[in-house]
Amino acid sequence: MAAISFEVEHQDQETSARTGRLQTPHGEIQTPIFMPVGTAGTVKGMKPRDLLEVGSQIILGNTYHLFLRPGHELVRQMGGLHKFMSWDKPILTDSGGFQVFSQAELRKITEEGVEFRSYLDGSKMWMGPEESMEVQEALGADIIMAFDECVALPATRDKIQDAMDRTTRWLKRCIKAHSREDQALFGIIQGGIELDLRRAHLEELAELGLPGYAIGGLSVGEAPEDMYRVVHDLAPRMPAEKPRYLMGVGRPEDLVECVAGGVDMFDCVMPTRNARNAQLFTTYGPLKIRNARYKDDPEPVDPECDCHTCTHFSRAYLRHLFVSKELLGSMLATHHNLAFYLRLMRQMRSAIEEGRFSTWRKDFYTSFRRGV
Amino acid sequence: MAAISFEVEHQDQETSARTGRLQTPHGEIQTPIFMPVGTAGTVKGMKPRDLLEVGSQIILGNTYHLFLRPGHELVRQMGGLHKFMSWDKPILTDSGGFQVFSQAELRKITEEGVEFRSYLDGSKMWMGPEESMEVQEALGADIIMAFDECVALPATRDKIQDAMDRTTRWLKRCIKAHSREDQALFGIIQGGIELDLRRAHLEELAELGLPGYAIGGLSVGEAPEDMYRVVHDLAPRMPAEKPRYLMGVGRPEDLVECVAGGVDMFDCVMPTRNARNAQLFTTYGPLKIRNARYKDDPEPVDPECDCHTCTHFSRAYLRHLFVSKELLGSMLATHHNLAFYLRLMRQMRSAIEEGRFSTWRKDFYTSFRRGV
Repeated sequence: MAAISFEVEHQDQETSARTGRLQTPHGEIQTPIFMPVGTAGTVKGMKPRDLLEVGSQIILGNTYHLFLRPGHELVRQMGGLHKFMSWDKPILTDSGGFQVFSQAELRKITEEGVEFRSYLDGSKMWMGPEESMEVQEALGADIIMAFDECVALPATRDKIQDAMDRTTRWLKRCIKAHSREDQALFGIIQGGIELDLRRAHLEELAELGLPGYAIGGLSVGEAPEDMYRVVHDLAPRMPAEKPRYLMGVGRPEDLVECVAGGVDMFDCVMPTRNARNAQLFTTYGPLKIRNARYKDDPEPVDPECDCHTCTHFSRAYLRHLFVSKELLGSMLATHHNLAFYLRLMRQMRSAIEEGRFSTWRKDFYTSFRRGV
Repeated sequence: MAAISFEVEHQDQETSARTGRLQTPHGEIQTPIFMPVGTAGTVKGMKPRDLLEVGSQIILGNTYHLFLRPGHELVRQMGGLHKFMSWDKPILTDSGGFQVFSQAELRKITEEGVEFRSYLDGSKMWMGPEESMEVQEALGADIIMAFDECVALPATRDKIQDAMDRTTRWLKRCIKAHSREDQALFGIIQGGIELDLRRAHLEELAELGLPGYAIGGLSVGEAPEDMYRVVHDLAPRMPAEKPRYLMGVGRPEDLVECVAGGVDMFDCVMPTRNARNAQLFTTYGPLKIRNARYKDDPEPVDPECDCHTCTHFSRAYLRHLFVSKELLGSMLATHHNLAFYLRLMRQMRSAIEEGRFSTWRKDFYTSFRRGV
């Protein structure tokens, strides 16, 4: 009956890290997992088969962007987002809330919802909890997110409390509006970096018995230590039998720390966006491929990586592609960065399963901080 | 001993069309063949494995661009162009002459060679026959082209004659300068659209006993009918036992007409460049995918095509990608257009082998002129 089911498989003894299996209408996901971001119905520069090759199990689509272009009705008419973009594995869509609050211009927030202007043509648009549900039902993702109010940090306690309260009221409207039984609706916990507010909001939301919960409103300007403090306090208090999703996070070290805190799901534009800006992730830390030192470097981007990019092309070639502004540069870099992120998640899953997560975590930092 | 060997397999009875096999140090090519253009060491938007998937047997690299960036010495140091770009099938490089004459600024032509300014930083550069050979030897293609003077049409007979004569003198210097035995040097026949000049130049060049000959200086402003007239007159007079290469051509119908004229090899940026400009080739003619009529069209780009793009994505999705300026749009369009061109060549090879080329040619036009 439920759209998804989740089972924790291994619980680490020294940290809150855990592995699990999440069943969805489009297949199983092994957690902890990273979700590549496919903003406009495509993970930039990657064919769906490339996504599978690097180990993607679920991708994220942005409701805000798809709502504005090509429009959710068109996607519905084309058979839903899975069919439209030729990806028949799980998809999660965000609610559009984050982008409406952080990117849209001239927004006007009321209890009903948010009025904003389209970044495409300046036309007036409207989105509230009911509209977010309608759009996400048209897109047809396996997991959909509640329409929430996310505040940029730093913010006053009053402002955070207000956003929390509104998020709860809007969540209840989302639950009421949501009708597709083949989609799981996740609630989003707000509360800034105030532990007491976060705990209070979690308590409110947990009572609603949703199939999964997300931590929203982090990675929005606060220090990484503040984010870790909140996640390490909050995640272990979240329902243990439900998937825990940390939204919009993050750097490789953030994934490691937050898996340790008990998070199961992540998404972030970092691997894909940085790839297009010629910043590559490697076992020995980040690498800016445009740097002149790589001009005649015959080594692969990451000598420890077995992805298509690293097994076929040199740093010198990738640098040439970026310097020459060739499409293939972004394609190969994106392929590698996603392979790196998804391998990182696989490594953590294995380490947790085999009871050596803490050792692995120490080794990861030794390598990652060594420098290329 | 020779770098390449060529054998004609089937000769069409009604036209000059023929099939053949061309052996090179990096494998065999079935002719007639189309060579995708990889200007700067990459066919834009295609991984080498994608090139193989659509049936590419040989690609073309531009000496002019690679000379300026990343520089031929770097490519040599990285093991040659095949290794640098991870393509271990045959490569042909042009001489740089065409680009120096048509694209470079402030060029000064003397008997020695050409002085021009780099389009990258305005610095003074020099290229003559010896330099072109040096660069092409460093790049290491299987087939390299003589440094020629190509004039834009229309031009006076005197100007065409001068360019022809210089091309012959430069060819002799190329032969003298060329030393790598694993590379085949092709000569280039000039002569504008004057049949007597073309025949005279062919006669001069044929005496030099080169392993292959190209028709240069076409598709440079003349009417298609003039090009066909020259090719149909000239190609059958070119040495029958050597591959015949028509440079920089062309549209699908140009390939059909010039195969009928006896040409074995073609290259053109049209399928790749047009793809990036959202113009797709189909069995039923060209299709501009940005057109609003494709907004909600669930059909593949070409219903008769079995390429990855056509078997996985709709016109509506491709239109969305182009309208949204997504990388994947150029990638999928390029994949399809090259698949279309290479299938066209396969179809012609089969038709020639099976003695039904004239019928096929008629059927091709019936479909291609029908309209999408």
